[in-house]
Amino acid sequence: MVTTVMNKQVILRDYVKDSPKESDLVIVSNTVELKVKSGSSTILVKNLYLSCDPYMGILMREPNSSTMALLDAYVPGKPLVGVGVSKVIDSDDPAFAKGDYVSAVVDWEEYTTIKTPIISKIDVNINVPLSYYTGLLGMAGLTAYAGFFEICSPKKGETVFVSAASGAVGHLVGQFAKLMGCYVVGSAGSKQKVDLLVNKLGFDDAFNYKEEPDLDSALKRCFPKGIDIYFENVGGKMLDAVLLNMKKYGRISVCGMISQYHLETRDRVHNLPDIMFKRIRMQGFVCGDFQDRFPKFLEYVLPYIKEGKLNYVEDIVKGLDNGPAALVGLYHGKNFGKQVLEVARE
Amino acid sequence: MVTTVMNKQVILRDYVKDSPKESDLVIVSNTVELKVKSGSSTILVKNLYLSCDPYMGILMREPNSSTMALLDAYVPGKPLVGVGVSKVIDSDDPAFAKGDYVSAVVDWEEYTTIKTPIISKIDVNINVPLSYYTGLLGMAGLTAYAGFFEICSPKKGETVFVSAASGAVGHLVGQFAKLMGCYVVGSAGSKQKVDLLVNKLGFDDAFNYKEEPDLDSALKRCFPKGIDIYFENVGGKMLDAVLLNMKKYGRISVCGMISQYHLETRDRVHNLPDIMFKRIRMQGFVCGDFQDRFPKFLEYVLPYIKEGKLNYVEDIVKGLDNGPAALVGLYHGKNFGKQVLEVARE
Repeated sequence: MVTTVMNKQVILRDYVKDSPKESDLVIVSNTVELKVKSGSSTILVKNLYLSCDPYMGILMREPNSSTMALLDAYVPGKPLVGVGVSKVIDSDDPAFAKGDYVSAVVDWEEYTTIKTPIISKIDVNINVPLSYYTGLLGMAGLTAYAGFFEICSPKKGETVFVSAASGAVGHLVGQFAKLMGCYVVGSAGSKQKVDLLVNKLGFDDAFNYKEEPDLDSALKRCFPKGIDIYFENVGGKMLDAVLLNMKKYGRISVCGMISQYHLETRDRVHNLPDIMFKRIRMQGFVCGDFQDRFPKFLEYVLPYIKEGKLNYVEDIVKGLDNGPAALVGLYHGKNFGKQVLEVARE
Repeated sequence: MVTTVMNKQVILRDYVKDSPKESDLVIVSNTVELKVKSGSSTILVKNLYLSCDPYMGILMREPNSSTMALLDAYVPGKPLVGVGVSKVIDSDDPAFAKGDYVSAVVDWEEYTTIKTPIISKIDVNINVPLSYYTGLLGMAGLTAYAGFFEICSPKKGETVFVSAASGAVGHLVGQFAKLMGCYVVGSAGSKQKVDLLVNKLGFDDAFNYKEEPDLDSALKRCFPKGIDIYFENVGGKMLDAVLLNMKKYGRISVCGMISQYHLETRDRVHNLPDIMFKRIRMQGFVCGDFQDRFPKFLEYVLPYIKEGKLNYVEDIVKGLDNGPAALVGLYHGKNFGKQVLEVARE
C-alpha cells in the first residue's frame, strides 16, 4: 500500500522587482505518494534542512543574460529551488538506499522526487549535525575555502578584509585566514555581529559599516598599510572604498554583491582605475565550479572542526512556513552566520 | 674643451585638475655641457624619440595613494619624464659607449644625464626604425604581448574585443589575437580609424563608439554569442556595456581606462555583479611588471615584423616644441596608432 501525505511548498508568486519581500512567496499544499516509480532511477527524499542563500534573490527576478549565466531563474507559480539536506524515503537508484542522507538540489517543499543533481551522499560517520551540510560542510564551506585559497592566493602575514563577515561564508573565510596567519578585519551591520567577529571568531578587528560615516576612513584606520586580499560579499559603496585601500598586486574574490542585486539604480563605483594603478586581480567565482575540490576541503576542515579550532555559527529557523521570512531576512542582515531552514529534524 | 649647448625642456606648469591642456605645459631652455663627470657612472644622451602615453596624464595630477601605486607623479616646475630612444653622447659607464643607442627613462628634453633606469641597449642589427623602440619594440609592444597572452589566457577561436583599438597598444593586441586565430572586434573614435582596423589591420569587425547610440547593442551585434576576452583601454560606459556581453569565465585585462582619469565625476558602472554571475577574471597590469618577458616577446614578434605579417602604425610629430600638443592630443583621440615625438633624427 502506498502512503499519501500532505506536501507543503514555498512558491514564487511572481518575479520580484526590488528587494524580495515575504509577500512575494506563498505557502501551498498538495499531496505526494511516498513511493518512487519502478524504473525511474529516481529517489524520493524528505527534506530536513534547506539552505537560505543570497543568490536565491537573484533567481527570483525576471531572468536576463547576466543572471542566467549564474543559474536558471525560478518560475513564477513553482517552488523555489535550493540546496537541502534530505533523507531517502524510497529509492529506485541502486546508489541510494532508504534511510540514506543526501545533500541535494531540491524544491522548497517537504518531499521531493529527485534524479539529479545529488551533490553528495552524507557520510554519517562524520559526526556533525546534519544541518552543517547546508553550510559548513556544504556550499558555504566550499565557497569560503575555494574563494579564499584558490581565488585569493593568500600568503601568511597578508592583510585580509571580509565584508558581510558574520555571514555564512564570511565568518568562515575570516577564520580560514586567521588559521593561515593573516591579519583579518571584517565588516558587519550591527554591534552584536562586530562583537561576535572579534570576541568569538578571532578576527583582529571589525567595524559596523552602518555606523561609519566614511568607509574609506574606516578602512584606513583598520589597514594603515593597505589591504592585500578583499573577500567581496557586498559590492557597491564598500567595494569603492576598498579599491582605494588595496595594495599593489592585491586580490579581490567576488563571492557576491548582495547590496546591489535589488537596487533600481546600483551604486556608483568610482575607483575602478585603481585596478590598473595597483595591478589588482578581481575574480568572480561560484562554488559549483570547485565541486571537485570537495574531498580536499573536507581533509582541510574536518581536523579543525574536531579540534574545536573553527567556530561555526548557524541561525536555524524552524518550519517551512517560516521559510519566506528566513530567506527575506538575508537581505536585511537579520541572520547571524548561516541561515538554515529546518523543515523536519528526522 | 667641453661643448655647451642649449637644452629645451617640456615643463609641467602645475598639477592638472581635469583633462591635460597644452597650456599646462611650457617649453623652457637651459644649457647643458656635453660631458659626464668622471666617476659618476652616468651617461649623457641626446634624446631622439619620446613616447607619448596616456598614463602620463595621470602623473600630471596631484598624486594620491592610488596614482602613486602606478608611478611617481611629475613635479610642477620640472620636466615630464617618459620613455625615450636616445643616443649616447658621452659615457662614464663601461656598459655604454659613445654612439650606442638606448631605450631609457628620460626627462622630456633634448639632452639627459642618466644613471638608471636604462631599459635596454638597442641592438642596431635588428633592422627597424629607431622610433619603434618607443612603441612596437618598447612599452606598447610588451604591454600588448603581456596583457594579451599572460593576462587574458587566450585560446584559438575565442572572441576578443579591444577598445581604443587603433591606439598604440590596441592595434597590436588585435593583430596578435588574429595571428593566434581569435575573432577580433575593435572600437575606435572615427570612421578613418574603423577603416584602418578592418581594411589594413585585419580586424574581423570594428565600430565607431561615438556613432553608436547604445554600446550594448553595438556589442550584441558584433558578438551575438558574447565576448571571451576584453582588452580594456577606456573604462567607464564601455566597460559597463562589455560586462553585459561577457561570456562565462571571460577575462578582462585592464591596461588602461583613459576615459576616466580626468573626469570630475567618473562614469557610473552598473554591471559589476556580472563579474560574479559570469565568473569573470578582471586584472590590472602594467608592462613594467613583465620586463623579464622582453626577450621572449622579441622572439615572438621579430619574425612577424620580418615577414610583414604585422602592421605597425606610428603617428610621428616632429620637434620638442610640439610635444605638448602631441601628448594632449591622446586625450582627444587625435593619434593614429602610436604617438611618437621626434626630438631629433640622429
